[in-house]
Amino acid sequence: MSEYSDHDARGVSVGLVEKRFFTFAQPPETLCLESGGRLGPVTVAYETCGTLSPAADNAVLICHALSGDSHVAGTYRADDPKPGWWDLMVGPGKGIDTGRYFVICANVIGSCMGSTGPGSPDPATGRPFGLNFPLVTIGDMVKAQKVLVEHLGIQRLLAVVGGSVGGMQVLEWSVRYPAMVRAAIPLATTCRHSALAIAFNEVSRQAIMADPDWRGGAYYEGPRPDHGLAVARMIGHITYLSDEALRQKFGRRLQDKEAFSFNFDADFQVESYLRYQGKKFVERFDANAFLYITKAADYFDLAQSHGDGSLVAAFAKARARFLVVAFTSDWLYPTYQSRELVTALKKNRRDVSFCEIEADWGHDAFLLPNPRLTDLLKGFLHRVHSDPA
Amino acid sequence: MSEYSDHDARGVSVGLVEKRFFTFAQPPETLCLESGGRLGPVTVAYETCGTLSPAADNAVLICHALSGDSHVAGTYRADDPKPGWWDLMVGPGKGIDTGRYFVICANVIGSCMGSTGPGSPDPATGRPFGLNFPLVTIGDMVKAQKVLVEHLGIQRLLAVVGGSVGGMQVLEWSVRYPAMVRAAIPLATTCRHSALAIAFNEVSRQAIMADPDWRGGAYYEGPRPDHGLAVARMIGHITYLSDEALRQKFGRRLQDKEAFSFNFDADFQVESYLRYQGKKFVERFDANAFLYITKAADYFDLAQSHGDGSLVAAFAKARARFLVVAFTSDWLYPTYQSRELVTALKKNRRDVSFCEIEADWGHDAFLLPNPRLTDLLKGFLHRVHSDPA
Repeated sequence: MSEYSDHDARGVSVGLVEKRFFTFAQPPETLCLESGGRLGPVTVAYETCGTLSPAADNAVLICHALSGDSHVAGTYRADDPKPGWWDLMVGPGKGIDTGRYFVICANVIGSCMGSTGPGSPDPATGRPFGLNFPLVTIGDMVKAQKVLVEHLGIQRLLAVVGGSVGGMQVLEWSVRYPAMVRAAIPLATTCRHSALAIAFNEVSRQAIMADPDWRGGAYYEGPRPDHGLAVARMIGHITYLSDEALRQKFGRRLQDKEAFSFNFDADFQVESYLRYQGKKFVERFDANAFLYITKAADYFDLAQSHGDGSLVAAFAKARARFLVVAFTSDWLYPTYQSRELVTALKKNRRDVSFCEIEADWGHDAFLLPNPRLTDLLKGFLHRVHSDPA
Repeated sequence: MSEYSDHDARGVSVGLVEKRFFTFAQPPETLCLESGGRLGPVTVAYETCGTLSPAADNAVLICHALSGDSHVAGTYRADDPKPGWWDLMVGPGKGIDTGRYFVICANVIGSCMGSTGPGSPDPATGRPFGLNFPLVTIGDMVKAQKVLVEHLGIQRLLAVVGGSVGGMQVLEWSVRYPAMVRAAIPLATTCRHSALAIAFNEVSRQAIMADPDWRGGAYYEGPRPDHGLAVARMIGHITYLSDEALRQKFGRRLQDKEAFSFNFDADFQVESYLRYQGKKFVERFDANAFLYITKAADYFDLAQSHGDGSLVAAFAKARARFLVVAFTSDWLYPTYQSRELVTALKKNRRDVSFCEIEADWGHDAFLLPNPRLTDLLKGFLHRVHSDPA
């Protein structure tokens, strides 16, 4: 255990935070997208915690995963029982210490949590874009984040941190804007989806598009494709856990009964859990945003977009120090995919630390309390911050 | 390689076969089900290949998996290009040699391939049962098979063989009717579903039940829940393959194009493949049957039903010789689950051979050409057949 292990992950909260909005690419300007399309105006919802130093050298950008948002830590109201999605890692004295660092988290474009996405009004019609929203890539998401970061007066980020689809954004940042990233911390992620990961995303999309209420994405004025989105979320949930996690959490335990129902009710606890997760998700997330972000993740291929197919060539542009973290039971982005990153970085003689954390909880492990991960992030950020820029 | 390896898995066909039907439990008689319900009349669709010996001591019962049927080998017509689902294993000189053995394969009750299931007419109304069909268990399926086997004049089976849900039937046979089973060959199976396996089945069921055309199972006189069933099949297909199999088969290769579509068409080959599998499946399978058989598989728990929670106690009843086969890349029923079977059998001093086959193809490996599996089955059956009964 390191010098930091005395800090409890569930320690002091960052307190009250506020969702802010920054709009750019105002017509006639637009944001050029990798698809060749254009988007404007673009709004990015973001939140910050901590204080930017006078030299603006302590900013940490946190990139959220598929269904996340800008609300990374703290609460919106004093009586709000639900803090941000990474509250256990972000706060005073925590792994990402808001006593030292200025933390920024922005909702990705294409999402539905405040940033411009398929549910936003199409300036051409005044009605929600639906599928007229252009397909955005991980690169496009990062381009929008860069405009925000510069708007906040930051020329160089101390670090970019994120897990899963957030980790893809970290990797993209490191090669797209190498001069702006001192440290890159990709967690439980990959430089490209395997066929298995694409397959799960595609089935999830098919579940949404099979829902008659989806109506080709033009459902905003009627009922929403809740059934399809719930199924999509259930599929996702399984891939975020592991065989072992599901055994420990549920096993074959029955739900509120002592014998089988001999019908199609939820007999097993794992069935109730999945139904509940699906139901809860549709209350907060937009089906089209799910389609757009999963497609962006499937398209992401760092080697292809930045290295002509070679990951080593792609990372030749990177200048950051890297901390790559993988979790042993993550079968969505297995640890061998993180090792590929590390190998390609080492071939470029980049400064890279790699940690494979023994954890039963599958892909979701990066979001769960883990003193080892907390210590790793804290120590790494401290070293980068202490070194001359 | 053994003495049998000269036989090509794709060798001589068993030739023309015919689907037959056997009806029993004619009213006022009924088949008593584990749910407490009753069913009658019960029809079992079955096929046979080879010739039953005068002593009736060469019968091999093959149990099919979730979406299989009685058509295990051979063809229905001379110009039929599509042989039975295990034609590469079953035929003259093949792994299960129809020159020596009398092979029987029956469609499970609850299915839709000729045996009584939710699409069959309910004698009470004359219309399809739908969800009025009682929930059947793996035990109930085996009970129906036993009536058929006795009807065919067989008091004792040389072997019961099957993979996946078929393997569950093999295990059930071995403890439910121990005196009738000389050898049991469960392949790529488990004595109970993990929470992970239940989770995938539940999401598949939810996809079907979310389809408005499902209409509580009463869709037989209108449009069928094809969208939901297709999604369910796609989910299943992913679980039958492996990360490595999908990489080898598809990787990130694009479908008929050189660049991304930047829309929600199928860009990747794996997406087209899944869509195609879903589409093909709805042409031949019934959504309610999918619900019933997956639920039977989830309920299956050999230790619970036959050993009061103890697998060792459950197998105390077994008398057969066992050949247990697992495949290294099967993550639906991982090899540790087969090892649990072997350990419990050994504690009962049962004669058990275990083979863990190195194979990249995931759960589906038991259905694919594999000289090692062919040799194993052939050698094992030969030894059992040669020994005094």
